[in-house]
Amino acid sequence: MSHHKTAAILVIGNEVLSGRTREANAYLAAQKLFDRGCKLGEISVVPDIQEAIVSTLNRLRDRFDAVITSGGIGPTHDDITMDAVAGSLGVTLLEHAKTLELMASHYGHDKLNDGRRRMARIPDGARPILCDKSICPGAHIDNVYVLAGVPYIFESQLDSILSDFGDSERPFIRREADVEFPESAFAKELERIQLGYRDVEIGSYPRMCGNKPCGKICLSSSNRDALDKAFEAVSAMLEELRNQT
Amino acid sequence: MSHHKTAAILVIGNEVLSGRTREANAYLAAQKLFDRGCKLGEISVVPDIQEAIVSTLNRLRDRFDAVITSGGIGPTHDDITMDAVAGSLGVTLLEHAKTLELMASHYGHDKLNDGRRRMARIPDGARPILCDKSICPGAHIDNVYVLAGVPYIFESQLDSILSDFGDSERPFIRREADVEFPESAFAKELERIQLGYRDVEIGSYPRMCGNKPCGKICLSSSNRDALDKAFEAVSAMLEELRNQT
Repeated sequence: MSHHKTAAILVIGNEVLSGRTREANAYLAAQKLFDRGCKLGEISVVPDIQEAIVSTLNRLRDRFDAVITSGGIGPTHDDITMDAVAGSLGVTLLEHAKTLELMASHYGHDKLNDGRRRMARIPDGARPILCDKSICPGAHIDNVYVLAGVPYIFESQLDSILSDFGDSERPFIRREADVEFPESAFAKELERIQLGYRDVEIGSYPRMCGNKPCGKICLSSSNRDALDKAFEAVSAMLEELRNQT
Repeated sequence: MSHHKTAAILVIGNEVLSGRTREANAYLAAQKLFDRGCKLGEISVVPDIQEAIVSTLNRLRDRFDAVITSGGIGPTHDDITMDAVAGSLGVTLLEHAKTLELMASHYGHDKLNDGRRRMARIPDGARPILCDKSICPGAHIDNVYVLAGVPYIFESQLDSILSDFGDSERPFIRREADVEFPESAFAKELERIQLGYRDVEIGSYPRMCGNKPCGKICLSSSNRDALDKAFEAVSAMLEELRNQT
């Protein structure tokens, strides 16, 4: 199969929208996608509401090569992601026979209650995403990857699908330069450098060091040669500023 | 004016999508909106690309009472949020006279370079959002609040607009119960409780404590009475489970 060059992350979680939980899965996935040169184009966090999940998933599926979802695949009433994904794709949910078998041998046949059976459901036509942290599978169907919200399970499932994304031989690379000037001192010149290196994404991230402006200029690219040249141009610009002051 | 009952947050930032920075502003705003009983309906993170910002802003503006944006209002080439907001609303950007005055007296007239002038631009018809952490204003126009991405400035600007959102007298309140069972042991009963308390949002957040399933059941509502009753029902359910084991 061809590897996804762009991706979006859809986080399903009232706990993030209510400020209870600081989102961690999208942050982890962003780093792993960067390291494989796969462009993460959007992160969206929506509530545990079927209509919100379906409409956001449809939008993201359409705009990006693939969508990774996080959350909402447990056994409780608020776990509706599998239903929403099936709805979005116009398929039904099926109990995955192999997962039921695994559950039966793990918990015992008599312990296969409704909650556990619920977690064995994946969309018709999906491939289960298995990992060694959970019996309950994620699901891959079309360009959607449905992963758990619990961080250690999310990470383990993510690792098992990452080879579908980008290329570990062509990662994005990042270089950063320390800045001890206000952004307004170099904004114009930095734009000139950016225009000269279309392959390189250049951002400026200011902060305060005590009462003095400081920060980082951050460059990233999958083209190492262009990155190094742009970085040299930024370094020369900063050196000249230092000489002027 | 009437207070916004629902809101969305739009984070503009390549640094979040590339995994360089763990998003913090949406997390802070989520907590503050919760404490004012304002429902945060979506968080979206998009890149520093005008089309992405405009289309997402239009979508969110349409679905929620108000949108808070974070990031992209500095002087550098990647700071295009004000342009995008003006584009979304069909207005032009104007240099804000009072801000230019403040800048001139702070930096000196001769130090008002293009970068600084760029930061004094707000959409025509907008109210500047001022705070004591930055001379450069945010902007409030229609149902959009444009705030800085630098966290300490974001927080200060956010505090100055929060009274437009929800009502501090009617906050959402949260209660949590500790759980030492797998979710499948109580999923069905928890759904029954949820159906009895439509006013209360009930979520289950499992994790592992060593090699044993554990977690929290989290309840929130702006209705204290309903919250307390639902919490009692959950506590009774857990107590019964404990007596069974």
